[in-house]
Amino acid sequence: MNDRILMKHGAGGRAMRTLIEETFVRGAPGELPEGSVGLDAMDDGAAIRMGDRWLVMTADSHVISPAFFPGGDIGRLAVAGTVNDLAMMGATEVVGLTCAVILEEGYPREELERIVASIRAASREARAPVVTGDTKVMGRGEIDGIVISTAGVAFTSRVVRDSGLRVGDRIVVTGTLGDHGMAVMSVRHNLGLEGELLSDVAPLGQLVAHLLSKHGDAVTAMKDPTRGGLASALHEMASKGGVGIVLDEPSLPVRDEVRSAADLLGIDPLYVANEGKAVLGMRPEAAEAVVATLREHPLGRRAAIVGTCVAERPGALVLDTGFGRRLVAELDGEPLPRIC
Amino acid sequence: MNDRILMKHGAGGRAMRTLIEETFVRGAPGELPEGSVGLDAMDDGAAIRMGDRWLVMTADSHVISPAFFPGGDIGRLAVAGTVNDLAMMGATEVVGLTCAVILEEGYPREELERIVASIRAASREARAPVVTGDTKVMGRGEIDGIVISTAGVAFTSRVVRDSGLRVGDRIVVTGTLGDHGMAVMSVRHNLGLEGELLSDVAPLGQLVAHLLSKHGDAVTAMKDPTRGGLASALHEMASKGGVGIVLDEPSLPVRDEVRSAADLLGIDPLYVANEGKAVLGMRPEAAEAVVATLREHPLGRRAAIVGTCVAERPGALVLDTGFGRRLVAELDGEPLPRIC
Repeated sequence: MNDRILMKHGAGGRAMRTLIEETFVRGAPGELPEGSVGLDAMDDGAAIRMGDRWLVMTADSHVISPAFFPGGDIGRLAVAGTVNDLAMMGATEVVGLTCAVILEEGYPREELERIVASIRAASREARAPVVTGDTKVMGRGEIDGIVISTAGVAFTSRVVRDSGLRVGDRIVVTGTLGDHGMAVMSVRHNLGLEGELLSDVAPLGQLVAHLLSKHGDAVTAMKDPTRGGLASALHEMASKGGVGIVLDEPSLPVRDEVRSAADLLGIDPLYVANEGKAVLGMRPEAAEAVVATLREHPLGRRAAIVGTCVAERPGALVLDTGFGRRLVAELDGEPLPRIC
Repeated sequence: MNDRILMKHGAGGRAMRTLIEETFVRGAPGELPEGSVGLDAMDDGAAIRMGDRWLVMTADSHVISPAFFPGGDIGRLAVAGTVNDLAMMGATEVVGLTCAVILEEGYPREELERIVASIRAASREARAPVVTGDTKVMGRGEIDGIVISTAGVAFTSRVVRDSGLRVGDRIVVTGTLGDHGMAVMSVRHNLGLEGELLSDVAPLGQLVAHLLSKHGDAVTAMKDPTRGGLASALHEMASKGGVGIVLDEPSLPVRDEVRSAADLLGIDPLYVANEGKAVLGMRPEAAEAVVATLREHPLGRRAAIVGTCVAERPGALVLDTGFGRRLVAELDGEPLPRIC
């Protein structure tokens, strides 16, 4: 055990999961009503059983740098991040969001106003009102600019877990991979690709509600592939579900611009964060229809079936390139801090 | 309007209220169900009407420095802060808390473990389980140590507002004033009083539940006097309720150690933050019985009636010293940053 916190402890991979398990989950009291999903599940949020429904709660801090990036900003990210975590639990009927802002002394008011406008626009788009908040100021040099912590509450009559994958399930992604992370990296590395690489940051509640209303019974698992990208989301889902996952590389939707930038930086888009995408586990007979349904929605235009759950190698992720198969390693940390 | 954020914008006084009004509240869409309390109320949290009950949501970021202080730490503060905001809306039946932690690279694991243990103990004491969380890491120098953002959800069948004061109401405080702020200041200024000055940080949910079960009908308003102290809480309550408040100085419960330290630093305890106290507006006929009820509980031992609401000077706070009366000025900012 490291006796100090390292950057990898926030990177969405194994190091972060171990820290959370060892520090926050182990020994935590389990005092929720029967049928609830609590801390120990390490899912996208908690689901508290209340009669025949669940109240779902999620929370995130957003520390992205820079706060304004191609395709979005920290305000849109904060709303989308929370709405998406709720949606990934099946909860698309949002009661409200909370928004706690920490500002560095000297932060420009004009930037704050732009971020608040962006929060409002995303909140309207997501039908998820911000109902309360908090404002703190730290001294110069005590915090880098702005940090936004959001929490969300929503109800659902069925909880979707990230642990529900079964052998035979198909893996569906709702769109192209790596857009958010590569857009942020392009700015940080001055790749000069700002016009081409745009973050996909978007609230997915309406897309997921549309999907669940038509194919709810076929959905076995959901997760949003944020920090650590699709690979990390699938490693976690495979491990929790006790299945292996074979990814069909030619089917993975990746924009040409993202692939070029990733090649340039020597990064695999499989590991790069997305902020407007979902990974779904799907009963095989429904998978084609699900993709058709997703494509009806603007945020699901490039939905695709990308893999299959198998009994072999439970917990492992295998990439089928069309020419052969290779194991996709699990990230311990990730080279890209402050991505969300 | 300042074009940059200043420390006073986080200090709990008028500057903070103006920033929140101008930036976060003005122009925000009002889309909550009839009878709800939203952003525009600028209360301790939001209350969303759901049939014959309200779902109450609150959120806070905790940035206190130092993270460990006499009588508590940032973990206990985070739980108490959120539980108390819920309780101040009348919501003591807590569904769950969320806890998002931001750590600086290099932060000692051992300190994190102590803080998590403290969160758990406070959560047990408050009967408010932490149900979900988030972990982020920022680079060295990008954040000062640790920041914890918490949100809470609770139900109530009656919402208590901070705007409900009426002429004739008595003002009750649940205990001594200024303990938290003076304990933190004593450490920062090396006053050498660490053994004597202890923060009052405590979750008030059980005390408030006990009070409301016996005297719910008599309670007209509640607020916790955190940043900016009792004076700032009362200024806000007086202004929202359209009443003047006359404080009876000899009745104000202030520990001798707190008064000595405050004198030493030239600070009025009226303006100093509390983290385990509530200010209550009370129908006059119930006030004595309420104080007796509060004193039955360990957290209410030094409860006292400290003032009266009057029709004169609505929005103003007047201190009756026993020899004469003087106006208590409203804080714009406050000299003590990062107190909570």
